[in-house]
Amino acid sequence: MPPDLRKLFPALAESTEIYLDSAATTQKPLPVIETIHRYHSSRTANAGRGTYPWATSLSTRLSRIRDRTAAFIGAEHPDEVVFTSGATAALNAVTLSWGLAVLEDGDEILYSPADHASNVHPWHHLRGLLARFGRRIELVPYRVTALGEADTADILAKVTPRTRLITTSHLHHVYGGLTTLEELRGLLDPAILLCFDCSQSGGHVPVDVTALGADFAIFAAHKMFGAPGTGILYCHRRVHDRLVPFLPGGNSGVLVSEAGLVPEAMPALLEGGTHNVPGVLALGSALEVLESLDVGAIAAHNRELTLRLIDGLRPIRGLEFLPGPAYASCAVGYGIVSFTLDGISATDLGFVLSELGFLVRTGLHCTVADAPAADAGSDDSVRVSTHVYNTADEIDRFTKCVMTIAEEVR
Amino acid sequence: MPPDLRKLFPALAESTEIYLDSAATTQKPLPVIETIHRYHSSRTANAGRGTYPWATSLSTRLSRIRDRTAAFIGAEHPDEVVFTSGATAALNAVTLSWGLAVLEDGDEILYSPADHASNVHPWHHLRGLLARFGRRIELVPYRVTALGEADTADILAKVTPRTRLITTSHLHHVYGGLTTLEELRGLLDPAILLCFDCSQSGGHVPVDVTALGADFAIFAAHKMFGAPGTGILYCHRRVHDRLVPFLPGGNSGVLVSEAGLVPEAMPALLEGGTHNVPGVLALGSALEVLESLDVGAIAAHNRELTLRLIDGLRPIRGLEFLPGPAYASCAVGYGIVSFTLDGISATDLGFVLSELGFLVRTGLHCTVADAPAADAGSDDSVRVSTHVYNTADEIDRFTKCVMTIAEEVR
Repeated sequence: MPPDLRKLFPALAESTEIYLDSAATTQKPLPVIETIHRYHSSRTANAGRGTYPWATSLSTRLSRIRDRTAAFIGAEHPDEVVFTSGATAALNAVTLSWGLAVLEDGDEILYSPADHASNVHPWHHLRGLLARFGRRIELVPYRVTALGEADTADILAKVTPRTRLITTSHLHHVYGGLTTLEELRGLLDPAILLCFDCSQSGGHVPVDVTALGADFAIFAAHKMFGAPGTGILYCHRRVHDRLVPFLPGGNSGVLVSEAGLVPEAMPALLEGGTHNVPGVLALGSALEVLESLDVGAIAAHNRELTLRLIDGLRPIRGLEFLPGPAYASCAVGYGIVSFTLDGISATDLGFVLSELGFLVRTGLHCTVADAPAADAGSDDSVRVSTHVYNTADEIDRFTKCVMTIAEEVR
Repeated sequence: MPPDLRKLFPALAESTEIYLDSAATTQKPLPVIETIHRYHSSRTANAGRGTYPWATSLSTRLSRIRDRTAAFIGAEHPDEVVFTSGATAALNAVTLSWGLAVLEDGDEILYSPADHASNVHPWHHLRGLLARFGRRIELVPYRVTALGEADTADILAKVTPRTRLITTSHLHHVYGGLTTLEELRGLLDPAILLCFDCSQSGGHVPVDVTALGADFAIFAAHKMFGAPGTGILYCHRRVHDRLVPFLPGGNSGVLVSEAGLVPEAMPALLEGGTHNVPGVLALGSALEVLESLDVGAIAAHNRELTLRLIDGLRPIRGLEFLPGPAYASCAVGYGIVSFTLDGISATDLGFVLSELGFLVRTGLHCTVADAPAADAGSDDSVRVSTHVYNTADEIDRFTKCVMTIAEEVR
């Protein structure tokens, strides 16, 4: 990585703490900060509405960013890219604009109860909504392997003729395992849709939704150098004619009819109301930064840090890794490692680490404590997550610190 | 207004154009711009998640802004204030978290087809969703008066024992008429809920949701000096036990059960996922600015400009006002005036005005062209909308310009 890279992130330049919580949100590079600042301080306007240049130039920029986003995630067509208010909204768009519209009594969804709540709660909510109207759908849980990946053998065993969609995190937000479902290629009925939550992989590893065979894919801008309040929902064209509107309002791609709203145009169909204009502009700048740093190089950097972290933590007595790359037989790692330590709760450990200047995430990490399944990661843990701005020295200082704490609590 | 007020809005200070489109979005004052800038450039973190100070201090600030918002809109309790991704999302939360959960076959909603699409489309979408499951609800349209206000006599004539909710804009986004429904006080079954879309009134006139008798009220932060991507949904406590989750995700106030999601806590129930943290922080700063300028004084300023605008436009031959304060017998006005001009389309007129440096909105202004009702404002018009930063001189220059154009096109 370029030696002056950290200067790109002003929050890190001014800080003495070591930020190891990029899976919660990434620090923001200067071009992103400046784009947002410029939007608010100069020629602020709404987009897609006014006919004067302040407004029309914004509409043009948004359209270019949609093209750039499509290219960045490997979408074939820009109309497959929907801007949402975040990854959670995007996942709920899948359940409300697709699930509510198409699912029939007895249909089944395969999901991982150990996934982030935003890939669990919407499905349970959908089931509850449908049940109110007398339709029962089944949420069929599948397991996660020791590597923190979706257990594709378990998925395959649970697929039935009623399976309509399989949803998975691409990169698991606690375990740090990468799931591509490529082992299932050719083995699944092509009518079964695939949904990938790429909230943790976007900007961390190269993502190609076409190569993944995704029908839906979800990204969180604020976890890829962008701003909170902006997400990306990829919808493959083959599902477009099955969708109903998502949160319709001004500029929705719909017509009013006696039967409700008639879908007219993607992606407007899922984009009612005023865009988060500065958020989308910021996403554009974030993608530029990611491209200039090269996501492949970022992934290599994170792999190096992850392996170093695992090597540094492994000798510590009483330390137990959660599922993930620590159990892999080859050198893999994607910037996320979680663990527990005997003799001290994760919350207390996180507090001590924070006092010593290491900012990590502790707790359940938005997994669902009461998810009705065996594999739900319902124990508190400490999660360390890195990005391009973290250094080997930071990792070494962190592992040394954990070792010292471990010795003290024994 | 303070003489150096315009310095508070850097986009105006640097511009030679005259911004008359505040109903689309307001310009941003310096404290708002600085708050957003600070968030992105210093100690960026997620809120409600991490246990280290970067994150916990944000959670505290968000909670204080919720208190401040409650006070600003006249809510009795902070848990009645929900942060959403915008006004459109907030209105869809009413239809999806309340309507979808409680409406029964034959229930009726009273609405104005001339309202903004974000207060029309969600209801038609709800009707379409319910119809899919065999439940028919009626969307009963009511009329708007020549003053651009909801016709309360028409509403009263259309209320039936099956009426469940009346929705209205508080300040109409094209007509600029203010609707309080106070003429209906004591005449309606108290079980009928009231929903006010305050997207245009928030920050423009003092709004007190308790005085309005609102069960739901909606605000758009970016139309009250805040940033796009943030809205406010007020939910009176008396409806809390009838709500189902809205876009659930991490940190939703829900429990997973066999029947779906069990609501646990407001406002988290309607706030799944990562907040638009800078957007909510910006809202806090926007409210501070609005309070320091005093919303009553802002309303008086806008009234003065509106009256001056109407007086200046009235003598122009071929100019016709849309419904609104231009037809009032007393001196009212809230910063929004729309009109057409014989001999030139609104689009062309808007283009000419833009060339001459006046930024106004033209077109349908997000009303629903094909709404099945008599009163839908389905003709293009020019809308002029003002805010505290506009001056009497700007209004005079604008009316003179329209007069010149009118003479040329005759």
